[in-house]
Amino acid sequence: MEEVAIIGAGQTPYGEFLYKGLKELFTEAYLEAVASVDRDFSPDLIEAAYIGCLSAGGGFQLGQLAPLLMGHVGLPDIPAVRVENACASGGFALYTAAMAVAAGRHEVVLAAGVEKMRDVAGDKGRLWLGVSGDTEYERLAGSTFAGIYALMANRYMHDYGLTREQLSLVPVKNHRHALANPKAQFRRELTLEEAMSGPMVAYPFNVWDCSPTSDGAAVVVLCNAKTALRFTDRPVYLAGFAAASDYLAVHDRETTTGLGAVRRAAAAAYRQAGLGPGDIDLAEVHDCFSIAEIMAYEDLGFCRPGEGARLLEEGRTTLGGGLPVNPSGGLKAKGHPLGATGCGQACEIFHQLRGTVREPSRQVSGARTALSHNVGGSGGSAVVCVYRKGE
Amino acid sequence: MEEVAIIGAGQTPYGEFLYKGLKELFTEAYLEAVASVDRDFSPDLIEAAYIGCLSAGGGFQLGQLAPLLMGHVGLPDIPAVRVENACASGGFALYTAAMAVAAGRHEVVLAAGVEKMRDVAGDKGRLWLGVSGDTEYERLAGSTFAGIYALMANRYMHDYGLTREQLSLVPVKNHRHALANPKAQFRRELTLEEAMSGPMVAYPFNVWDCSPTSDGAAVVVLCNAKTALRFTDRPVYLAGFAAASDYLAVHDRETTTGLGAVRRAAAAAYRQAGLGPGDIDLAEVHDCFSIAEIMAYEDLGFCRPGEGARLLEEGRTTLGGGLPVNPSGGLKAKGHPLGATGCGQACEIFHQLRGTVREPSRQVSGARTALSHNVGGSGGSAVVCVYRKGE
Repeated sequence: MEEVAIIGAGQTPYGEFLYKGLKELFTEAYLEAVASVDRDFSPDLIEAAYIGCLSAGGGFQLGQLAPLLMGHVGLPDIPAVRVENACASGGFALYTAAMAVAAGRHEVVLAAGVEKMRDVAGDKGRLWLGVSGDTEYERLAGSTFAGIYALMANRYMHDYGLTREQLSLVPVKNHRHALANPKAQFRRELTLEEAMSGPMVAYPFNVWDCSPTSDGAAVVVLCNAKTALRFTDRPVYLAGFAAASDYLAVHDRETTTGLGAVRRAAAAAYRQAGLGPGDIDLAEVHDCFSIAEIMAYEDLGFCRPGEGARLLEEGRTTLGGGLPVNPSGGLKAKGHPLGATGCGQACEIFHQLRGTVREPSRQVSGARTALSHNVGGSGGSAVVCVYRKGE
Repeated sequence: MEEVAIIGAGQTPYGEFLYKGLKELFTEAYLEAVASVDRDFSPDLIEAAYIGCLSAGGGFQLGQLAPLLMGHVGLPDIPAVRVENACASGGFALYTAAMAVAAGRHEVVLAAGVEKMRDVAGDKGRLWLGVSGDTEYERLAGSTFAGIYALMANRYMHDYGLTREQLSLVPVKNHRHALANPKAQFRRELTLEEAMSGPMVAYPFNVWDCSPTSDGAAVVVLCNAKTALRFTDRPVYLAGFAAASDYLAVHDRETTTGLGAVRRAAAAAYRQAGLGPGDIDLAEVHDCFSIAEIMAYEDLGFCRPGEGARLLEEGRTTLGGGLPVNPSGGLKAKGHPLGATGCGQACEIFHQLRGTVREPSRQVSGARTALSHNVGGSGGSAVVCVYRKGE
């Protein structure tokens, strides 16, 4: 396998953009990504594109979204395909694009994600939040995305004595991080008191435990590592990229206090990178609900099962701590445009490892390695990537 | 790049199956594919799955169809992702799966496609037929899938003098081929007179020029060519696999009497295989409308522009001719379950090159090479694969 590098990345702000459709959002991220390549780059070097999106198929463009978007930015000829695994669609776009570079088939490949959730016809935006689960056993039985994660949170609280207050440490931290991220959907400090007393969604979750619906796009430019130095002196290597699955219906899984798909993907990504959890300097994880970030710490090996909340209490995963998690603000505060999220994480890490985060208070200094964690629905699929700063 | 072989393939009959959903259709094709591997095979050797489907997202399972289906057949852990490019979704599943094997990442990978069009809620089955085009410029302006191809046919007739009778040679041939295919949706001889006088759909197309809506699934087992001989003495090599795109809206394209995406994909696939159009012994092409098969002959280099109808008149592309096209019956008579079609073509070719087609009258004898041609919508994307029989 050829080694894979990232040489450029861009993303839109996440939020509600009533006058921007999928084309406008994608183009904005695309132009920023292309412009971020340091030198000697031209869009016509891009040989293929893999684009993650969930809600195409239910709304605007029903089929062939990927060639449509690439045509819109002036690259109508190259292979372009949509990949979908619900909220992990962006991560899977990154994963399949990396495979095309690893195969030696292409030198420069685009991985992207885009989603429009905030002003779509009828109830579509909300409908997509029901997609996380198994249609026959979960969705049609009336369960919601929040409801399924709430089941996991309740079991976790029962098994490990996690408290309501500890859960709230996740949104409090991520809102604080997002304060310094001008692209975040919510730039608003959240006190622990507020975080514990929002309107109830599904016990134990109140509204502050839940990531929002968002519009947004993110684009990453991948390149064969051998030739990446032609375009930049400071590539970021995609040292490990791996995916795995699990039963969609939680009742079929071995555990509900962790995600098997994440554990398997993480093991494979660490193995490929030749690194372990102790080597990671920062991470962007999929905090679609507060419990999800706590389980992520454990599934990724940052701590043992049941110890996730301790990392939060000790400030270890806060900016300035030993292992900052979600310096972007995470899904909770940065926003969660489903298909874009996985590529947006890679975009944040690209800038963090290069030291090019524009806001000094959000820049993790001296980081050399990073990890991204993107989950489909309630854990039916997951992509874990490990990044290494170029020398 | 590692070389890629096909070691197994299976598919359901195509047609209307009111009591079978996506899970049942996929499982049926999966079990046939796994059972078709000659020896020493076990499903737990499958390391990843790429599944093409268009209509998930608008119907039954909204997200994460791929891990859902793999969990249903007992492989819940492996990376599984849906790929979508409208009617070329199956071809793109094959293409991305082949890339994962070519990368050396996986030894055995599943490529699959599945679609349910015949008994879905409301107008969804028909709605998907509007997906071929650009939503803003074509679909919302009222154009249909048949209407767009009809525009191309009219232009082609104007430019090259193609007659209404010549168009009908396509469905007549493909219906004749399907007579010997027990898995075909329509096993019914079609006379030239009938073919020319069906109810009008969009001039010049009557109903016999148009492929049907279908339920169905197809599964292909890919393997690294180095180890394929462990599982069979007669692998079929995927000597070339390539994809390309074009503007979705036909008004943006360079020509409307051929598909640029197909020409580009074919050039790349021939180059990779080290073969040319003259080396191909049989082909499965995407005859979604009668004109599409005629343009395919030309775009694939089987003849020069404007000469497609002559191949039909000479019987060259009929079973028994020098270059049989669509021995399965093609999309017109075998059926066209959108996401399944591309993998179903590979399944037909797998058996043709191995000499294991069950119906002697349909078996192309002595074929050593083959080509498949799968088109997204009206040509916004295309996958072309070139196959070589193992020695």
